[in-house]
Amino acid sequence: MIKSVAVIGATHGNEMSGIQLVSNWINHGIPAEYDDLVISCHLANQAALDANVRFIEEDLNRQFTEARLNDENTEVLETKLAQQLNQLLGPKGNAKHDLVIDIHNTTSNMGATLIILEADDFNLQMARYVKHVMPEANILVEDEKPYLDHHYLCTTGSKGVMIEVGAQPQGLLRADVYLATEKMAHAILTFVQLYNDNALPALPQCEAFRFGENILYPMDEQGRRTAMIHGSLQDRDFETLGPEEPAFQAFTGETIGWQGDEVTYPHFINEAAYHKLNVAFATAKRFML
Amino acid sequence: MIKSVAVIGATHGNEMSGIQLVSNWINHGIPAEYDDLVISCHLANQAALDANVRFIEEDLNRQFTEARLNDENTEVLETKLAQQLNQLLGPKGNAKHDLVIDIHNTTSNMGATLIILEADDFNLQMARYVKHVMPEANILVEDEKPYLDHHYLCTTGSKGVMIEVGAQPQGLLRADVYLATEKMAHAILTFVQLYNDNALPALPQCEAFRFGENILYPMDEQGRRTAMIHGSLQDRDFETLGPEEPAFQAFTGETIGWQGDEVTYPHFINEAAYHKLNVAFATAKRFML
Repeated sequence: MIKSVAVIGATHGNEMSGIQLVSNWINHGIPAEYDDLVISCHLANQAALDANVRFIEEDLNRQFTEARLNDENTEVLETKLAQQLNQLLGPKGNAKHDLVIDIHNTTSNMGATLIILEADDFNLQMARYVKHVMPEANILVEDEKPYLDHHYLCTTGSKGVMIEVGAQPQGLLRADVYLATEKMAHAILTFVQLYNDNALPALPQCEAFRFGENILYPMDEQGRRTAMIHGSLQDRDFETLGPEEPAFQAFTGETIGWQGDEVTYPHFINEAAYHKLNVAFATAKRFML
Repeated sequence: MIKSVAVIGATHGNEMSGIQLVSNWINHGIPAEYDDLVISCHLANQAALDANVRFIEEDLNRQFTEARLNDENTEVLETKLAQQLNQLLGPKGNAKHDLVIDIHNTTSNMGATLIILEADDFNLQMARYVKHVMPEANILVEDEKPYLDHHYLCTTGSKGVMIEVGAQPQGLLRADVYLATEKMAHAILTFVQLYNDNALPALPQCEAFRFGENILYPMDEQGRRTAMIHGSLQDRDFETLGPEEPAFQAFTGETIGWQGDEVTYPHFINEAAYHKLNVAFATAKRFML
């Protein structure tokens, strides 16, 4: 049974769709149809929200490791905040909350994406249900390591998932992204009620994507970027990119083809938060979940 | 004669298209076809660029007033920077540079927009020429006060214009926006050469927009935002918005119509930098220039 659910916005302080949805639920109440659940809403990083930045010192959504959570001598604002949130929501591995739903948005055109960190029965059924009621959604599986080894905030819960919606610039709210975020949050909460009531319909396998690796921008010997995402790849998250198809456009005008050996499914294409890290996009493999 | 031209990026440190174009010209040289001109390239706010933010303390592009430029006691980083840039590029009113071209980008879907601050013969011919070679461009006229009374960096030059291209999120580079920015920079520099050579073709009147006023988001009595830009207005910069047509969508779901008395041409719709100021969009009137 999943009774206690935490819904989180402002894990990144400039991702406005989750911030606005959580704020609306805090100010006006959680929709009455979920009265069977104990739902709490939280704005995770108020200081970053006030400053309208992703984080003040370090990315909060990279702090939830055993090492960071047990570092009593840390001076890093977000590490200390993670320790507080871990007590409030978790503690990780022995959690007060059965499910933590952490809401994000991205400048990449990823539509409404549900990110799960393991393909156990609960998550698998959730993914299938979300895809069933929201066929336009994407399912992204990041299960390259055990659930509790991830550094994400949502791993404070016994179960944890992320909602990731784009394309939306940092620091503003688009109606299309807000409405897709709201729709996915409702889909997950409705799923939890059906799961608890043992009332889920039989759900078919669904399409999903498994994270591969991050691809860096082309750079010269001085470490300066020499190319940008090709115009024909931009905004085509989760579509196919085959060998030698245009991936980058050099500032000199030339097209640079995809150097992979096989078709991949790029996502997080041109995500602003990864720009300074020189990450151009992530690869994925498509499979049936 | 317009001989000395300054091309500026990083007036806002997270507007990457101007930053990349100016960096490319600094690193690889200014295109040879402009050898008749003396062109210098500058990244205006290196600290903001390094921090990947619009500004460190105050908006640099609001500092170029007589009061700020003569404030010897200021402690504000961007005011001090404006005073240095005024000596380098201007000084305002008696400038070393005949023309300052300041390159910006916006999260609003404004396409490639040329912003001029007075409709004198030089600017009028520039606008008509840009529109002639780049019909997709928009011309925005902000001449509600005298040229030198504006607080913009570009007013350090004897003549000053801004290139404003969108939609592009802060902190990343899109190929479409970069290429449109590059195209407009080339159009302006080619115009300057033709102007100097008295070789301009006869140019017809062109469509332009004159800035009206800023429109705020609907808010409740506690000052909390109650609505977002309506999905049918989002991305429709410089298109018509008539009385009672959808302008906002309340979080409760209702549509809020445009309350103006006449058709307007919204622009800077959902610009991230104005989000915290509660500015939803700016109005404009269309006219022939």
